[in-house]
Amino acid sequence: MSLVQAAIAGATGYSGEELVRLLIRHPGVELACVTSRTDAGRAIGEVFPRFQGQKYADLKFSGSDPAIIAASGARVAFLALPHGAAAPFARALLEAGVRVIDLSADFRIRDAAIYREFYGHDHPAPELLPRSVYGIPELYRAQLHGANLVASAGCYPTSIILPLHPLLKAGLLDPASIVATSLSGVSGAGRNVAAEYLYVECNENARPYGVPKHRHLAEIEQELSAAAGRPVVINFAPHLIPVTRGILSTIHAMPRPGVAPCAITAALEAAYGAEPFIRLQGEQGTVELKNVAHTNFLDIAWRHDPRTGRLILMSAEDNLVKGAAGQAIQNLNVMCHWAEATGLSL
Amino acid sequence: MSLVQAAIAGATGYSGEELVRLLIRHPGVELACVTSRTDAGRAIGEVFPRFQGQKYADLKFSGSDPAIIAASGARVAFLALPHGAAAPFARALLEAGVRVIDLSADFRIRDAAIYREFYGHDHPAPELLPRSVYGIPELYRAQLHGANLVASAGCYPTSIILPLHPLLKAGLLDPASIVATSLSGVSGAGRNVAAEYLYVECNENARPYGVPKHRHLAEIEQELSAAAGRPVVINFAPHLIPVTRGILSTIHAMPRPGVAPCAITAALEAAYGAEPFIRLQGEQGTVELKNVAHTNFLDIAWRHDPRTGRLILMSAEDNLVKGAAGQAIQNLNVMCHWAEATGLSL
Amino acid sequence: MSLVQAAIAGATGYSGEELVRLLIRHPGVELACVTSRTDAGRAIGEVFPRFQGQKYADLKFSGSDPAIIAASGARVAFLALPHGAAAPFARALLEAGVRVIDLSADFRIRDAAIYREFYGHDHPAPELLPRSVYGIPELYRAQLHGANLVASAGCYPTSIILPLHPLLKAGLLDPASIVATSLSGVSGAGRNVAAEYLYVECNENARPYGVPKHRHLAEIEQELSAAAGRPVVINFAPHLIPVTRGILSTIHAMPRPGVAPCAITAALEAAYGAEPFIRLQGEQGTVELKNVAHTNFLDIAWRHDPRTGRLILMSAEDNLVKGAAGQAIQNLNVMCHWAEATGLSL
Amino acid sequence: MSLVQAAIAGATGYSGEELVRLLIRHPGVELACVTSRTDAGRAIGEVFPRFQGQKYADLKFSGSDPAIIAASGARVAFLALPHGAAAPFARALLEAGVRVIDLSADFRIRDAAIYREFYGHDHPAPELLPRSVYGIPELYRAQLHGANLVASAGCYPTSIILPLHPLLKAGLLDPASIVATSLSGVSGAGRNVAAEYLYVECNENARPYGVPKHRHLAEIEQELSAAAGRPVVINFAPHLIPVTRGILSTIHAMPRPGVAPCAITAALEAAYGAEPFIRLQGEQGTVELKNVAHTNFLDIAWRHDPRTGRLILMSAEDNLVKGAAGQAIQNLNVMCHWAEATGLSL
Repeated sequence: MSLVQAAIAGATGYSGEELVRLLIRHPGVELACVTSRTDAGRAIGEVFPRFQGQKYADLKFSGSDPAIIAASGARVAFLALPHGAAAPFARALLEAGVRVIDLSADFRIRDAAIYREFYGHDHPAPELLPRSVYGIPELYRAQLHGANLVASAGCYPTSIILPLHPLLKAGLLDPASIVATSLSGVSGAGRNVAAEYLYVECNENARPYGVPKHRHLAEIEQELSAAAGRPVVINFAPHLIPVTRGILSTIHAMPRPGVAPCAITAALEAAYGAEPFIRLQGEQGTVELKNVAHTNFLDIAWRHDPRTGRLILMSAEDNLVKGAAGQAIQNLNVMCHWAEATGLSL
Repeated sequence: MSLVQAAIAGATGYSGEELVRLLIRHPGVELACVTSRTDAGRAIGEVFPRFQGQKYADLKFSGSDPAIIAASGARVAFLALPHGAAAPFARALLEAGVRVIDLSADFRIRDAAIYREFYGHDHPAPELLPRSVYGIPELYRAQLHGANLVASAGCYPTSIILPLHPLLKAGLLDPASIVATSLSGVSGAGRNVAAEYLYVECNENARPYGVPKHRHLAEIEQELSAAAGRPVVINFAPHLIPVTRGILSTIHAMPRPGVAPCAITAALEAAYGAEPFIRLQGEQGTVELKNVAHTNFLDIAWRHDPRTGRLILMSAEDNLVKGAAGQAIQNLNVMCHWAEATGLSL
Repeated sequence: MSLVQAAIAGATGYSGEELVRLLIRHPGVELACVTSRTDAGRAIGEVFPRFQGQKYADLKFSGSDPAIIAASGARVAFLALPHGAAAPFARALLEAGVRVIDLSADFRIRDAAIYREFYGHDHPAPELLPRSVYGIPELYRAQLHGANLVASAGCYPTSIILPLHPLLKAGLLDPASIVATSLSGVSGAGRNVAAEYLYVECNENARPYGVPKHRHLAEIEQELSAAAGRPVVINFAPHLIPVTRGILSTIHAMPRPGVAPCAITAALEAAYGAEPFIRLQGEQGTVELKNVAHTNFLDIAWRHDPRTGRLILMSAEDNLVKGAAGQAIQNLNVMCHWAEATGLSL
Repeated sequence: MSLVQAAIAGATGYSGEELVRLLIRHPGVELACVTSRTDAGRAIGEVFPRFQGQKYADLKFSGSDPAIIAASGARVAFLALPHGAAAPFARALLEAGVRVIDLSADFRIRDAAIYREFYGHDHPAPELLPRSVYGIPELYRAQLHGANLVASAGCYPTSIILPLHPLLKAGLLDPASIVATSLSGVSGAGRNVAAEYLYVECNENARPYGVPKHRHLAEIEQELSAAAGRPVVINFAPHLIPVTRGILSTIHAMPRPGVAPCAITAALEAAYGAEPFIRLQGEQGTVELKNVAHTNFLDIAWRHDPRTGRLILMSAEDNLVKGAAGQAIQNLNVMCHWAEATGLSL
């Protein structure tokens, strides 16, 4: 395996920090450059004492500038930047021949009008949208192989799209019946220094937020619609709970008339039975955040409720790994034709 | 206000402990007797050091025996016992002329057959069921006035029934469309010394459980059916989250065709605008566990989703107060014709 | 009990919020005015939804101005302001005839030079220092009766001074041998919107800080020196732990030669046996944060180590109650010649 | 690197589970056998769903029997058993030619009389004590090379011995002056299904325990005495805090007269400057649990207090890694002449 030089833009956020953690042990990647608006000039081990004594501890943050990344020799760049800020980086890097894996929302929405509807401003680089591949390897593996611009999927969307995708694709569910409720750890808000994310405000607390039109609905519905072959609109109710990491999604949906429970199971097994990072827990099993914490796995369990007829899908992932940095690296592995679990095992 | 002598059976569980906390400052009650299978002979302040220096710190636990309660002079007894264990206590106490407020599930289900379906054994005292009043004062205030046997409502049911009741009663919702997802603190499991409730297993974790047929469905559907005037069957997905106290419920339901959002708001305000323990947060407000912790309030907020047409109801309560001990005392206050907030203000 | 009109300056911090909580049920106080730099014009129930439906929910925050407090009719003002900001308020209020209970550090240090040493700037109102009474009722009850300016003691100091005071006063300990280690909940940092107090940074973490010269040493040593009748210098190592409320202090000290363990016990019992808010747990008992949370109690337990000869004192309090708002109200109760536990029972 | 066959006895406790996690990625070890009293016959992935999809997920637990381990082909066995239970395993395994790394306390105390004093029963295998090597590689590297019986050091002891050892060895500290205060996460109690370790009892709580004579004092004082060349008796006050993982120790000690602060720094740097798993944070740096969580690092920072003359040493480790499973593997790496960080990097 020849080493690929890589960069992380915005490496001081939680997703960026997690990328550093995972790349330390990735055998195919050499981290050539990390950037930060706030900590340029400081070393990784200084900003993150946890990384002292590890590879890259002495690597210094560069200023937040795509030209610096391009000059570093990086052939691929992870963008762990706020939405809106990622697009200009992507444009400059692509022009410089650097492949881009964007962890922001900037290239996830294929329709610039929907981007504007959900994000409240015009898309910053609509000309790049046709080149972008939505970064869930389980769904877009073939397209990822040659992609130069990957929009690594969001944390909530990954946990909701993956359980539903094969079922909608097979026409097993009524698309109008979907209600998704998700619980997220506080790191999902990023390293956001706001009163609502203080320890005292989050501890011994839980709350819904962003109901009924959270921004992640845009990409969730885009992908569910693609699966169903028709527009799908769902309800999505995210909640903040007092854990650092993890997303748990519980999804209710009505199977189409005549769909037997075993058809649900068969569709999920056909889609994901061979996937390295999806663990089907079946109709008896369960999902828990602790089982996926610090891993790239998405666990899925399900139940058929004979009383109401509804299907209940439950999924769990680590929002910083399968929901962000791990999935980004999984995308990279596919882009580089490496074994998909490279650098992502325990 | 003349003092009413009261007893707590099973005062060493979390609900019993919370009853002690609340009765310490109730001006109308004199705690005459507390019982415990495990701590008989020890004083309250010894078993619960937090109560040292408070009223009742020196009161000793009696053995777990209804005859001891009756002999103590208690005119009312709170039963904080496991389901199945409460019924024989209730029978003996009622025969001795002691009014009973039962915090277990034993007398909540009016139909013994449904009790058997959900609890897996025959009802232990079916002859008492017709005398039992379901203990949510907001719904059964009139019947509580003269009741001698009150089945204080469960924690999850309180958080789900109250938001839905006036809407179903007014025929505003499609009863077949209801999906309730709830998050509960770990004290909801009681002082249950099992591996799954260890700190290390619950911390940094969250998980669904009891899906799709949790026992509390029996009383939830009973009350929703009563409101709707027809059988209501719902989906209910409870989750365990790492907080000590609190239940948060997020409920999706489809309004009947033609029902305007303002009709929802009007129905909730008509039902609860004057209630001392329900705080309507409206279509803009929110609910959080921290706002209700250690109080007897149930907060309710709601949203209309124009994209799917669904109504989203969100409620929060302290599972040990409005979901257990506080509601039991609220029931007592009604039974005794006292101001309903007596002993329950901050 | 005739009602005393009171004000809280800085009522949106954690100590101010806790004062509101406690004053809601204080039978001798009418809250006439609350001030806030950030939330002037908003009602208490709006800023703190937890207080909706309670007394004072509709009371509006005034701007942060002592003239407004004086004009409100308040006869006593609690200052829950940052150190440095409290002194000018105190001066203006005293001139207007309003008694002041200051929860900041501004009037705790009797020696302005020591204030400058520990706080890094000149004392803002040195002329008032002689009028100030250090606000630990167990030690300064007599002086508090007629005081117009009370410097309510700090959270760490209360937990360290009280266990040591009677032992130093009786000459039982070697003053040079004292090592105090304290654990504090995150609310001790106030509603401080800084990255280090974010949930993700505090959860699953613990750290020492402010070693070896935390500001609270100034008042700790002042009071211990007063007790010992000679200068006392100690080691103090505070730690931040992931709880919202509570301070736990573990203090090691060497008894003077020939001092028997029973003399320690006798001195503590003589000093505190009749105190309403100190609970002596003895040589077998223990202290835990959960036993004091939301109460005004300070629990103290102790051990004699025959192997090293050292005494180990352990104390626990709620930093927001006995360590701040509760103690301030206890001071008020003494100042007003009310029963000391008024408004402070469970 | 030829693979060494290994076994874990007691693999369902927290230390055993952590050994599994770490051995999954150890390139020199093949896990041949895991035993369990409670889960024999079940697979690792069944007992620990988090390990599904990982190496060893299908390995089944054997019964708890040293003969089974010996028959499995294991050449080294980790004993993650309760103290007292490990000794007979060790005896049988050594007789069968299996090298033993014991994570219990059974072989840590070289003097059987001291074992009896601290553990309350006769030593179960005193004849093996002379063969045992105390398992802290930083102190006993040479002896570990050929050892067949290693007593991997305890969690608290590792965090206290390592900071003090070089200072006592160099005669820089007054051995009578040492006071160690430690904070431990709840996993330190093992998977102990007792009421005191329930989530509700530990959350929002903290408490000292085992003061003044915790069992770990026996090995702490043994090693400090060996360093000092004379008997050392110290104070040790452990505390339980609400985190899953981590130990933080804050140690106060008086330097001998004339010892300059720079001599302390020099001694620590001389001892540990080249150690792969000790990170010296110096006189300005700090230690936090989050920096060492899930790693084998021990971080040490220190301060000189010119006011009292005392030295304050602060250390942090993950109790399950450097305090248990990680250190056991570090011991194995030394025993096998592998690079000491093998399998232990991030």
